[in-house]
Amino acid sequence: MDPAMFATRTSNVSASIIREILKLTQGSDIISFGGGFPSPQSFPVEDMKRYNEELLAKYGKEILQYGTTEGFVPLREILAKQAEEIGISATKENILLTTGAQQVIDLMAKALIDKDDVVLVENPTFLAALNVFKMYEARIVGVDTDSHGLLPDDLERKIKEHKPKLVYIIPNFQNPTGVTTSFSRRKEIMDACGKAGVPVLEDDPYSLIRFEGEHLPAISSFDKWGTAVYASSFSKTVSPGIRLGYAIAGKDIMNKLVVGKQTTDVCSNNLAQRAVYEFMASGRFAEHVKDIISEYRPKRDKMFEMVERTFPKGTKLNKPHGGLFLWAKLPDGISAEQMLKPAIEKAKVAYIPGSPFYIDPSHGKDEMRMNFSNATLEQIEIGIERLGKVLSGKI
Amino acid sequence: MDPAMFATRTSNVSASIIREILKLTQGSDIISFGGGFPSPQSFPVEDMKRYNEELLAKYGKEILQYGTTEGFVPLREILAKQAEEIGISATKENILLTTGAQQVIDLMAKALIDKDDVVLVENPTFLAALNVFKMYEARIVGVDTDSHGLLPDDLERKIKEHKPKLVYIIPNFQNPTGVTTSFSRRKEIMDACGKAGVPVLEDDPYSLIRFEGEHLPAISSFDKWGTAVYASSFSKTVSPGIRLGYAIAGKDIMNKLVVGKQTTDVCSNNLAQRAVYEFMASGRFAEHVKDIISEYRPKRDKMFEMVERTFPKGTKLNKPHGGLFLWAKLPDGISAEQMLKPAIEKAKVAYIPGSPFYIDPSHGKDEMRMNFSNATLEQIEIGIERLGKVLSGKI
Repeated sequence: MDPAMFATRTSNVSASIIREILKLTQGSDIISFGGGFPSPQSFPVEDMKRYNEELLAKYGKEILQYGTTEGFVPLREILAKQAEEIGISATKENILLTTGAQQVIDLMAKALIDKDDVVLVENPTFLAALNVFKMYEARIVGVDTDSHGLLPDDLERKIKEHKPKLVYIIPNFQNPTGVTTSFSRRKEIMDACGKAGVPVLEDDPYSLIRFEGEHLPAISSFDKWGTAVYASSFSKTVSPGIRLGYAIAGKDIMNKLVVGKQTTDVCSNNLAQRAVYEFMASGRFAEHVKDIISEYRPKRDKMFEMVERTFPKGTKLNKPHGGLFLWAKLPDGISAEQMLKPAIEKAKVAYIPGSPFYIDPSHGKDEMRMNFSNATLEQIEIGIERLGKVLSGKI
Repeated sequence: MDPAMFATRTSNVSASIIREILKLTQGSDIISFGGGFPSPQSFPVEDMKRYNEELLAKYGKEILQYGTTEGFVPLREILAKQAEEIGISATKENILLTTGAQQVIDLMAKALIDKDDVVLVENPTFLAALNVFKMYEARIVGVDTDSHGLLPDDLERKIKEHKPKLVYIIPNFQNPTGVTTSFSRRKEIMDACGKAGVPVLEDDPYSLIRFEGEHLPAISSFDKWGTAVYASSFSKTVSPGIRLGYAIAGKDIMNKLVVGKQTTDVCSNNLAQRAVYEFMASGRFAEHVKDIISEYRPKRDKMFEMVERTFPKGTKLNKPHGGLFLWAKLPDGISAEQMLKPAIEKAKVAYIPGSPFYIDPSHGKDEMRMNFSNATLEQIEIGIERLGKVLSGKI
């Protein structure tokens, strides 16, 4: 087809580099720290099987019919109640069930972004969020960060300078850096955005997977202006294959998200919504999250310890308090990007180099993201050791 | 929130009028011919229960994990093979599983439409497709139609005049009119679009629900230019609640659709894909479609007969050869739009007036769409009789 027929937006985004790397590693003997996949051991297969069976037996005709765009009311109610734990006041009217939290990012961009509008993000940030904003032809501007999250001063300055339509933040165990935004920063960030009337999208898929320390109130919990939207997902706590996430939003934004979803996929999968409701209402969900934490904490510890032990001297590493990822900065002269090929070929280990997470992909070449949830403890031990040797030029 | 923060596109689309009418009728004693819902009796509850159970037992960890964006390979293979029956040559590489066929429309618009680009459509057409095109800020232009579908002359003329980015057509039992595009028109339409290099989206969710006559080759079967995309759905043949549809597309467009889906919802629900695969591979799907036809044909006949008998003289009505809808044009002076309120209040019957299906909603006020799949035979008999009385001014 004549390439001129395609919309301009499509030239901004190419197939996800992560998915391309994953394709290379599938079905092979390669140990992959590349994706953001949960552990297959963590999936509540038996629970899902039982709920699906019982629910289809009881409510089959309703479950197989169209659902409302907003989603299954009892699940919306339970999510509104759960939101209280992170300081968000919500009722079911504020909850929209979505086809993964990825859809929340897409619907928020659909609701807010005209071509050339500015979106402020942590830099680096979630690759697939950058791709959404590029699809909507936003101008993406990075805000400076440190180990406590976004710098409120820089945020204020950039709000004034760029008059953004959206600020996108991952407050807990950020993807890719693992950084958690501190309590005081959360309030300062919300104040800066709220006073300027700028919508905030708080993307929070990992917060329940916390290995140590206290849960912090959401950035949205400090929202007095009705401009914050909170997004989360069941991909890391139940299953990504069911494609279920949700948004918590005030009335004005909610109306736009709902209309956006109507034109996008009408409603979310009913069986997934009902099964997750049963899982939460029974209390099994909370137990299950504890099991995930018990599985992932030693993996994080093992990966951290092995990286410290085997990576070249001068590697910088921070220990995330939760989530799925370790982020490392290699010492001068070692390029994580250039080492990927030998890592896959010689060490049979895959990871994601830092560049695709940056707005300007010429950055982050000496950084790398390693996922610790999907590999086994043994794979982490062997894989990181091998990777350390490749990075140190020993194999 | 400051309304100025919202994207311009959002002012083009409001909440679906159909969904709003449906909300009014839910849980009440109103007989609704309003929605496009399949019959709950038609859902393969037992099959889905069995497949879900067996599949989770066998492949639970894979099913609950992320899937590929393109979808489950064996289902893509079986769909490619099934496409041969309507003359389309495809391999699994040409198939993308989607979150309903609605997502195909959204992804096609995302791939092709820049602001102010022209989309040509049958007028009237599927309301939710119009809303997608409005969301992408397209200029929507209607092509003249008759009882055999789009008029190729007018299509050619409008392609020359408007240089559209997309032609959108529902070839079988069109929503809302029930019209089926004739064999010869299909080839003429494809020729007109192909020669001009204009992409065609052939939206075909109803074709298997054919009550009489032969299946016709798809418009896409005449594509020698690689510009046609075929879309279909399991919403009318299996279940809308599982949210599963698919696109068949050539390589160039497929790449854009896949990248679009990556940024939108990553992948489709795995369990739904596997269950539908089992349903098709076992041969149960084909039997099940026959059952649906056996259920819907008498409903179409009953509704047609009752409208003929009870609606005001001069009502124009065509008998669709399949699908879910009857379309009527009331005689001069009777407004389907104005009669909706008395119909709901006095006759306790709901339908959709014609206007929202038109590009210019000042048209179609004397037309109405009535769904015959969701109501029972008895409800059709009683409901249409009452509606006839209201429209004739008898109650």
